[in-house]
Amino acid sequence: MNFDLDSSTDVLRRTPATLQALLAGIGEGWARGTEGPETFSPFDVVGHLIDGEETDWIPRARIILARGPDVRFEPYDRFRHKARNAGRSLGSLLDELARLRAANLEVVRSWGLTAADLDLPGSHPSLGRVTLRQLLAAWVVHDLGHIAQVARVMAKQYREAVGPWVPFMPVLTDHEVPRS
Amino acid sequence: MNFDLDSSTDVLRRTPATLQALLAGIGEGWARGTEGPETFSPFDVVGHLIDGEETDWIPRARIILARGPDVRFEPYDRFRHKARNAGRSLGSLLDELARLRAANLEVVRSWGLTAADLDLPGSHPSLGRVTLRQLLAAWVVHDLGHIAQVARVMAKQYREAVGPWVPFMPVLTDHEVPRS
Repeated sequence: MNFDLDSSTDVLRRTPATLQALLAGIGEGWARGTEGPETFSPFDVVGHLIDGEETDWIPRARIILARGPDVRFEPYDRFRHKARNAGRSLGSLLDELARLRAANLEVVRSWGLTAADLDLPGSHPSLGRVTLRQLLAAWVVHDLGHIAQVARVMAKQYREAVGPWVPFMPVLTDHEVPRS
Repeated sequence: MNFDLDSSTDVLRRTPATLQALLAGIGEGWARGTEGPETFSPFDVVGHLIDGEETDWIPRARIILARGPDVRFEPYDRFRHKARNAGRSLGSLLDELARLRAANLEVVRSWGLTAADLDLPGSHPSLGRVTLRQLLAAWVVHDLGHIAQVARVMAKQYREAVGPWVPFMPVLTDHEVPRS
């Protein structure tokens, strides 16, 4: 599929409600389970998405749109949420994500981006030259990847409980070596 | 995590709303995209979950609870939905899934299952002896696996659009050989 701005913001708008439906009020076992050491729980994923709203997608888009001599992005801290959200409840993080996302999509709308704007370049710390269009597409894919991760991590909490069903449930053996 | 009936039905109750949030009213490109030949689109996944409501989980639980001499399950047709839903809209399938799931969870509640009931055996056509507890756990994991699949399949529609971001987006290279 080719990138389309309206279609992309439509998907981005759905993420907080999707995670609310899956996680709001859920038991601690589902919310805090992981795939093993150094992997994210659903709680961690919501925190990581909040970090993205505050420090990644919109700040990087602003660097691109400033059209300055230096379009390098700041590196992104994948573990900022660990300290930030100690003591927070999952419900409060879900609400915060919804607020931040709505505000960020309003910012994107206010830019009135043209095709020429979407072609503007930025410089990713390890990937090199990227366009604003690719950055916005990556925002969409990043959301969807983490929604898939939440469902997968929840599923794995029942790996033992399904007994002989494991070979028929590929989600239980996805990412046996952590990939994200 | 050990199987818990209330915690399991809590997750099962969330699936229709999760898929509504992710898919209701979404563009055809997202709804109908796949991971390649013989793989499911999000539209197909919703149809497959409806098939499960009608022909798999509750019918199999009834076979177990009947405590008859023959506890063998009927084989499950993973492609029943293809003919059944030709011409249907995604919106109507999402609504149908919500109705079927709510009714099925009411059936489960009405059974007032005890720990002894959950230990009752059935016979899976290829996996052999399973318990009602394992069947219900598999229902939960099956849902979560297909939610993960929907998000993954959607993400892959933007595999080209993200440009150099592919190596940082593991969801784009999950299931390069179909696993479900």
